[in-house]
Amino acid sequence: MSDSPLGVADLLGVLAYAELTAFLRLAEDAARHAPTLTDRAALSDLAATEYAHFRLLRDRIASLGVDPEEAMAPFVRPLDDWHAQTAPSDWLEALVKAYVGTGIALDFYREAAAHVDDKTRELVEEVLVDEGRSQFAVDRVGAAIRQDRRQAGRLALWARRLVGEALSQGQHVVAARPELAALLVEAAGEDITRMFGRLTEAHGGRMAALGLTPGP
Amino acid sequence: MSDSPLGVADLLGVLAYAELTAFLRLAEDAARHAPTLTDRAALSDLAATEYAHFRLLRDRIASLGVDPEEAMAPFVRPLDDWHAQTAPSDWLEALVKAYVGTGIALDFYREAAAHVDDKTRELVEEVLVDEGRSQFAVDRVGAAIRQDRRQAGRLALWARRLVGEALSQGQHVVAARPELAALLVEAAGEDITRMFGRLTEAHGGRMAALGLTPGP
Repeated sequence: MSDSPLGVADLLGVLAYAELTAFLRLAEDAARHAPTLTDRAALSDLAATEYAHFRLLRDRIASLGVDPEEAMAPFVRPLDDWHAQTAPSDWLEALVKAYVGTGIALDFYREAAAHVDDKTRELVEEVLVDEGRSQFAVDRVGAAIRQDRRQAGRLALWARRLVGEALSQGQHVVAARPELAALLVEAAGEDITRMFGRLTEAHGGRMAALGLTPGP
Repeated sequence: MSDSPLGVADLLGVLAYAELTAFLRLAEDAARHAPTLTDRAALSDLAATEYAHFRLLRDRIASLGVDPEEAMAPFVRPLDDWHAQTAPSDWLEALVKAYVGTGIALDFYREAAAHVDDKTRELVEEVLVDEGRSQFAVDRVGAAIRQDRRQAGRLALWARRLVGEALSQGQHVVAARPELAALLVEAAGEDITRMFGRLTEAHGGRMAALGLTPGP
């Protein structure tokens, strides 16, 4: 067990609500923006996977003797605010959000899970494995940019906004939940700069995969 | 095999799109109307199940050599129209829709599946089994009505509207897809009146379960 059981409940709580709300928002984006039924089904598939993850996390929270609703409650506002600030206005924005936004969030959770008890960490890692599910987003965005190079600039700005809003909400969370922040710092050890380096590098990798890095 | 392979593709197509769109709409209702996180999770659970059913149906359509998108296409408009006409304005309306609206639709699909090939019928029946998943809707609506008897009249009218709009869209579907209509008539044999009797009786049972029948 970690020395920080409060931090563990927080980690599982924020992750559970993140999955539940990602499920609902991806479903909304699928209904609103998908140009074809096949695309709608593909984004729905991502959404359904998020829901399955939510269920695993909720059950784990309950098995720790914590009320899942209480564990999630502190994170409802910042996560809802993040989604409200980053509602996609079209299909490509929805795909970039599904891939980049989710990716950043998952990296943070993985860092925070590095020093919790084995069982929690295994569950978090299971939930965080992408298994290539979001590859279709990479394929679709890449194809759109090859067809119309001007999309790249617009979508790169959009991705920057997703990150900026995430950092802004992340600061609210850290200020309100010091136990969760402690997990992150504990994970980073002495060198929190190195952790941010890892997060930045992973984000850069996703942007490159989408074709959203400055061209030569 | 049925003599009516076109009808089978139609049946699987309408059912697949019904499940996909039910998934998306239930998720939307959960995000918009659920009063607590527990309620949100409960309706999300129903939504995720619909998605799993969609996946089974889509795979079956593909295994018949039919493009799932083409099989679903004729039913997008009537099903989208039904949902647009019956967007719940609050949590209780969302629950009644999840239980009554879905129930009627499932009864129709079950009737239509009575005379298709064994494999298709088994799949349809698997997808249509409720397994008590919607019992939470019955519990919540019942509790709300016991607390405030005036809710019953309003929700009974709402349920009537759900049925009316379903019949109206059903007529469009039958007019546009004679092969699907043929499955229903074939299922009913000589006596289509008896089939409507069964559907009406099942609907009455659901209304009674919700406490939405005229009091003594």
